[in-house]
Amino acid sequence: MASNAGPRLNIDNINPHVREAKYAVRGELAVKSEEYRAALAKGASDLPFSQVISANIGNPQQLDQKPLTFFRQVLSILENPLLLEKGDVLINHLGYQPDVLERAKTLLGHVGSVGAYSASNGVPAIRQSIADFLERRDGFPANQADIYLSAGASSGVNTLLHVICANEKSGILVPIPQYPLYTASLSVLNAHCVPYLLDEQKNWGTDLATIKASYEKAKAEGIDVRAIVIINPGNPTGASLSEADIRAVLDFARQKRLVVLADEVYQTNVFVGEFISFKRTLRQLQAENPNGGFDAVELASLHSVSKGMVGECGHRGGYFELVNFDPQVQAEIYKFVSIMLCAPVIGQCLVELMVNPPRPGEPSYELYDREYNSIFNGLRERATALHKAFEQMEGVECGEPQGSMYLFPTIKLPAGAAEAAAKEGRTPDEFYCMRLLDATGVCVVPGSGFGQKEGTLHFRTTFLAPGTEWVGSIVKFHKEFVEKYR
Amino acid sequence: MASNAGPRLNIDNINPHVREAKYAVRGELAVKSEEYRAALAKGASDLPFSQVISANIGNPQQLDQKPLTFFRQVLSILENPLLLEKGDVLINHLGYQPDVLERAKTLLGHVGSVGAYSASNGVPAIRQSIADFLERRDGFPANQADIYLSAGASSGVNTLLHVICANEKSGILVPIPQYPLYTASLSVLNAHCVPYLLDEQKNWGTDLATIKASYEKAKAEGIDVRAIVIINPGNPTGASLSEADIRAVLDFARQKRLVVLADEVYQTNVFVGEFISFKRTLRQLQAENPNGGFDAVELASLHSVSKGMVGECGHRGGYFELVNFDPQVQAEIYKFVSIMLCAPVIGQCLVELMVNPPRPGEPSYELYDREYNSIFNGLRERATALHKAFEQMEGVECGEPQGSMYLFPTIKLPAGAAEAAAKEGRTPDEFYCMRLLDATGVCVVPGSGFGQKEGTLHFRTTFLAPGTEWVGSIVKFHKEFVEKYR
Repeated sequence: MASNAGPRLNIDNINPHVREAKYAVRGELAVKSEEYRAALAKGASDLPFSQVISANIGNPQQLDQKPLTFFRQVLSILENPLLLEKGDVLINHLGYQPDVLERAKTLLGHVGSVGAYSASNGVPAIRQSIADFLERRDGFPANQADIYLSAGASSGVNTLLHVICANEKSGILVPIPQYPLYTASLSVLNAHCVPYLLDEQKNWGTDLATIKASYEKAKAEGIDVRAIVIINPGNPTGASLSEADIRAVLDFARQKRLVVLADEVYQTNVFVGEFISFKRTLRQLQAENPNGGFDAVELASLHSVSKGMVGECGHRGGYFELVNFDPQVQAEIYKFVSIMLCAPVIGQCLVELMVNPPRPGEPSYELYDREYNSIFNGLRERATALHKAFEQMEGVECGEPQGSMYLFPTIKLPAGAAEAAAKEGRTPDEFYCMRLLDATGVCVVPGSGFGQKEGTLHFRTTFLAPGTEWVGSIVKFHKEFVEKYR
Repeated sequence: MASNAGPRLNIDNINPHVREAKYAVRGELAVKSEEYRAALAKGASDLPFSQVISANIGNPQQLDQKPLTFFRQVLSILENPLLLEKGDVLINHLGYQPDVLERAKTLLGHVGSVGAYSASNGVPAIRQSIADFLERRDGFPANQADIYLSAGASSGVNTLLHVICANEKSGILVPIPQYPLYTASLSVLNAHCVPYLLDEQKNWGTDLATIKASYEKAKAEGIDVRAIVIINPGNPTGASLSEADIRAVLDFARQKRLVVLADEVYQTNVFVGEFISFKRTLRQLQAENPNGGFDAVELASLHSVSKGMVGECGHRGGYFELVNFDPQVQAEIYKFVSIMLCAPVIGQCLVELMVNPPRPGEPSYELYDREYNSIFNGLRERATALHKAFEQMEGVECGEPQGSMYLFPTIKLPAGAAEAAAKEGRTPDEFYCMRLLDATGVCVVPGSGFGQKEGTLHFRTTFLAPGTEWVGSIVKFHKEFVEKYR
């Protein structure tokens, strides 16, 4: 029977919206870098490098970042609560401090077993601990009932976009360049990404006139623009937004009735100035303008254990807080997250540790503080060193590192490179990044994976990898590349 | 401005497909049971019961099931690898066996840190360990490249349905009664659930004539039927399918070119006969009929750490294996799972422990084996006790327990109950379950949450809760309920 000639599913008949989604962070370059890594592990000696540097993805503990001792000690007890029966051994022989045992007992009291499902929106006491943290951070009350634990921030974004996008006319304002989770999820949902360009000249800040123009253009095309995404500190840009920028976005959201999605997962990775949360700013605007309509601005802000000095992305822990949302809409969000049952419980516990770390005077504080600061300072130093290297490179421009884990330099390539790229069916930045990987083992992501202003080229690199050798190899490669295609 | 009068999102303008999704397992009854639990915790003394029994959800460790010691000892080291430096303390003072340390070392060698992202489809060595397990289980080779780690089986189902359903004409055959993950996910995707009834008279087995009729009816309505879901052992039914039933389904899938989704998360919860995998049966059919077209039958089979004697649902670990899938389709599945980065790494490690537990002769084997058998026997005893209780109850019929964690008895209620239910705007089974909760603190799920043949009523209860008191309270309630509405 001819109808039985092959599998039922093929590339042309599966979900076209899945097919259209693009996710460059783990695309062809990443796959090739893993092949190089495997070849090196098997003893390959014909490669021009001796190690692969995965600067393509913000994966701190794959590189040099060590987990925070207090956190992992608590988690070890949560996984094996029988250890609590041997508290003296933990303290006298394994270096656990009494507050480690206390915290583990408290968390076990809340979750029962980390092997049990929690409530769909997360363990109630952990939600309360997050609310307490938000209150301390922002100076405004937070309600545990408005907090939803998630499997990393990505899962939270997925939930929110699922509820917000109603049909194929729905659109979401997304910064360009952006983390491709947003465009990929909108592709899958068959909703519109309404791109607005960030301003590279102002260190990748938001420009209200640009946002407005994108909004108006989309409206004119019949798109029902429903929300605006802000990533602050920025990914891939590393920008840290000013309070004025945040206020302007919130005021625009009020005027145009846009839900604000604030991706704030890099909130502790700030090197210049301080992190300003959308929640605090919104509450301030509400207080300053009692009848100004800000109490109708819906804000969803996201955070996770994946980045910052915690860097525990493999644990898939995160949360989002909803502000000014309709209770019936929140009930639908609760139902939606119920379908996947709950976020990983050990990841939820890690969120609790992140928002409620040891405090001054507590036995584990000194070590925690030392480890935390050492990671922070290490990241800043690496960012600065990488930035300096970029400044030396011909045709490369890069703003001062402000935050997150990334630099996103502009690269100006000779015309010959564009021609060679076209022959391979690649964009010039893809071509550049592929040759960089082949020559040095350093894997970065071309700017086209995040979106970039027409006529410009970039790449994104993390500054997580230790040492300076890999930075030197980029400088050397770049020089040779420019010579070759000049 | 009137347009700024309230939040942008309301129940009438959010995603209608999310709104339409139903997920009774965590619905109104579950919420009310949590309110009762909270009231009891605060010392409420005006309730007719002193504890809440969550028999609504297969959450083993929330009730009596203890985690397996070997598994949790390994996980405690994965969370705090510094413990390996004190191996003598672990062995001499904390009861860890040398094979616990060995396994932890091996897994850490594979993952680096459990705080780092893994490959999108899971840690390669863990995929290989799963492939080895499948080969031992089925007697046919398995390829690690066809295995995808997921955050519990639910997340795997979500992935597969996203890829398989192409548009609003796509339909999936789903057993009725079914676990509501399937109908809820299809609602969200705006695809068709094509229901086929299981045969209660044959202990909830599949009936091919019924499946065929459902398929033909859907085709006649213009639905593009693409796949068939089988849950074996059954949820909510507890059925364990015969090899003949499995062969018949696979042959039907071959004829009609349907992808087979085999939800096999209860594969170790089998009390009668033995578990027969779809993979083994498909490979046997391929071998028996070399040109019979079975090599074009696509099978996705799912498993997880959530159920069975492992019972670690809070860890959100699982995997699916693809058989006979087109490589380009697999590449799209890989991309789709990449958007959420990876499954929780500690959950992936737990999958590895599940598929590769201690073996006879190894130091941890004896304890593991004793714990495992004790859980298995306890579940069988509870199932039998509950089944006996149902046999005593007037108007209740329930087949012999065969597998999974559930019983799904038929209840025949007096006409007065239906009238009282209608007054509350409830179905009679919802009404019954609500009164049961109010009277006894026992939370079960009405049959309507899973689907049931018209004119029949059921409820699903787990048999996870220890003790017999709660079973007695159901018997007493039922008698009084029937008396009242007779």
